[in-house]
Amino acid sequence: MSTSAARRERFVKVFESIRDELIEHFAGEGMQKDAVEWYKRNLDYNVPGGKLNRGISVTDTVEILLGRPLDDVEYKRAAVLGWCVELLQAFFLVSDDMMDSSITRRGQPCYYRVPSVGLIAVNDSFMLEGAIYHLLKTYFRKDSYYVDLIELFHDTSYKTEMGQLVDLITAPEDHVDLSKFSLKKHQFIVIYKTAYYSFYLPVALAMYMCGITAPSSYDLALKILIPLGEYFQVQDDYLDCFGTHEQIGKIGTDIVDNKCSWLINVALAHASTEQRKVLDECYGRKDAEKERRVKEIYNALGLQKRYEEYEQGSYEKIMGLIETIPASGQSVEGNAVPLKREVFKSFLDKIYKRTK
Amino acid sequence: MSTSAARRERFVKVFESIRDELIEHFAGEGMQKDAVEWYKRNLDYNVPGGKLNRGISVTDTVEILLGRPLDDVEYKRAAVLGWCVELLQAFFLVSDDMMDSSITRRGQPCYYRVPSVGLIAVNDSFMLEGAIYHLLKTYFRKDSYYVDLIELFHDTSYKTEMGQLVDLITAPEDHVDLSKFSLKKHQFIVIYKTAYYSFYLPVALAMYMCGITAPSSYDLALKILIPLGEYFQVQDDYLDCFGTHEQIGKIGTDIVDNKCSWLINVALAHASTEQRKVLDECYGRKDAEKERRVKEIYNALGLQKRYEEYEQGSYEKIMGLIETIPASGQSVEGNAVPLKREVFKSFLDKIYKRTK
Repeated sequence: MSTSAARRERFVKVFESIRDELIEHFAGEGMQKDAVEWYKRNLDYNVPGGKLNRGISVTDTVEILLGRPLDDVEYKRAAVLGWCVELLQAFFLVSDDMMDSSITRRGQPCYYRVPSVGLIAVNDSFMLEGAIYHLLKTYFRKDSYYVDLIELFHDTSYKTEMGQLVDLITAPEDHVDLSKFSLKKHQFIVIYKTAYYSFYLPVALAMYMCGITAPSSYDLALKILIPLGEYFQVQDDYLDCFGTHEQIGKIGTDIVDNKCSWLINVALAHASTEQRKVLDECYGRKDAEKERRVKEIYNALGLQKRYEEYEQGSYEKIMGLIETIPASGQSVEGNAVPLKREVFKSFLDKIYKRTK
Repeated sequence: MSTSAARRERFVKVFESIRDELIEHFAGEGMQKDAVEWYKRNLDYNVPGGKLNRGISVTDTVEILLGRPLDDVEYKRAAVLGWCVELLQAFFLVSDDMMDSSITRRGQPCYYRVPSVGLIAVNDSFMLEGAIYHLLKTYFRKDSYYVDLIELFHDTSYKTEMGQLVDLITAPEDHVDLSKFSLKKHQFIVIYKTAYYSFYLPVALAMYMCGITAPSSYDLALKILIPLGEYFQVQDDYLDCFGTHEQIGKIGTDIVDNKCSWLINVALAHASTEQRKVLDECYGRKDAEKERRVKEIYNALGLQKRYEEYEQGSYEKIMGLIETIPASGQSVEGNAVPLKREVFKSFLDKIYKRTK
């Protein structure tokens, strides 16, 4: 078994105990059997089925920061924070799928499309969010950084919701208006909707758990992780169009779905008047021929090459930011451990030139 | 102007400043104009249009506990907590209306039915919830009871969501199964879905703000306010059927909507085999004749009289509970001020024998 499969297995084991705790607490409130089973299905269906990169990165980061393997108690606590990130993601995905009228997610029907569920998925998504704060209270109430953890989840959720709002009103699936798009708006959506919760949140949680208290350390982490998250999402947008089915495990639909993707925004910035006309007519339409014509323009505008330049530039910029962290390993005043370059390098290495 | 109209006006004035603060913070995050206007409409459409009893009861309770009028700073802080309760309610109502496919709310179309909104209402409801924690952080971060306020909102939200889940799976609008109903289940739904957030939450918030710290005081408040909330909701159920249109300002639809109401549960507990058969056939159907037949059985079973007995019994039980609070006004150790009977009596007086 590869190290990464073993790490995943250890992490998933913690989910089972967390889920059982949540269910027991729920049953302990006097809930009847059908409701308890409903909540269990909600958790099992929506929380553990993804790649779990966000959750596992919390335990990885704690290990890097402490510079040693974690004992069982430490691992459990770090993994609880990791599962809280996965719960937050589940909360957003269940509701996003409804708002986007999506069909499948992680190789199964979207939760709201399960016949008995339907719109009850709205309340079920709330209960996934509710579980986060119940777990934080159970595991971290006595810690000095308890309120920091809570505020971090609040702030991150609010920011993600802001990003989702801008995305929803900029790129509704049923009304194409490319004049609403811009690279600046794309950047805003990506940072708010994805980067904060996917990159900054897991690292900041690990930092709190390791006794890092200096606000300057959090500022520095944010300064690196936001561009990293941006780069990650641009890659995602690129792979949706230029990745093969084998690489990304799905068929990209950003063009037909009128998504405010990096590619269309770069295309709009460089299109001639005629090309712009084609994009206006063909983007966001449920029509394979129109999709093909958009891709033709992407090729004519050399988007693959532009992406490679972007990727190289991002990599260098982020490496430069990482190198502003002192290599000495000396800790900032107030911090129990120093912030390490390796935390960020390990993220960057996983992402750079990925093809899936 | 009546005292109650003046109180309402003072409370609503605070909303305007809170809304402007939320909007400014939102704009300060770099949101573009259309998104800022969207959030403003979300707040204006969904938060201030109700009776505001829950919100105003926070300021009233603070005044009773301190035993004097509040200065402007104190009033603003108490009103912020009151508006946080109203934001929580707005979060639930926007999403409940979607799940229930409701048509109107507070005399206007339900928010999700506003043409441009639709399913975006899901994310907009999240942003109403997000506003609560942003406000608590802005106004209470430095207070010793900050974490208590946050936990109270978390716990209350989670409980309300549990109640909503049981309600949704017990009484789906499109599938009638009266064997799922029982007075016990009705009680559970009412306590979790309504009593905690409508009665316990506002009073407990006021108690924290007034420096009440003894857990026994919160236990006592809970012990009184949960039955009070139960009584309130039973009244609501009763008025839906037996209140006139002039009294309740709407036409009741609990019978046709398959609601797990107090009335149907009492009817089920006393119905003969034939009456039960009629209820099974006629309850929860969009059919005026079937609704009439259900009401006929309600009358045959003397539900009005049973309600009056319930009301009298509840009143006496709750008064008995209130009288367990020492009349002396002596404070429990650790509390800055004593818990007063008047807090609870003022709630009971507003509710007892209300007809709207």
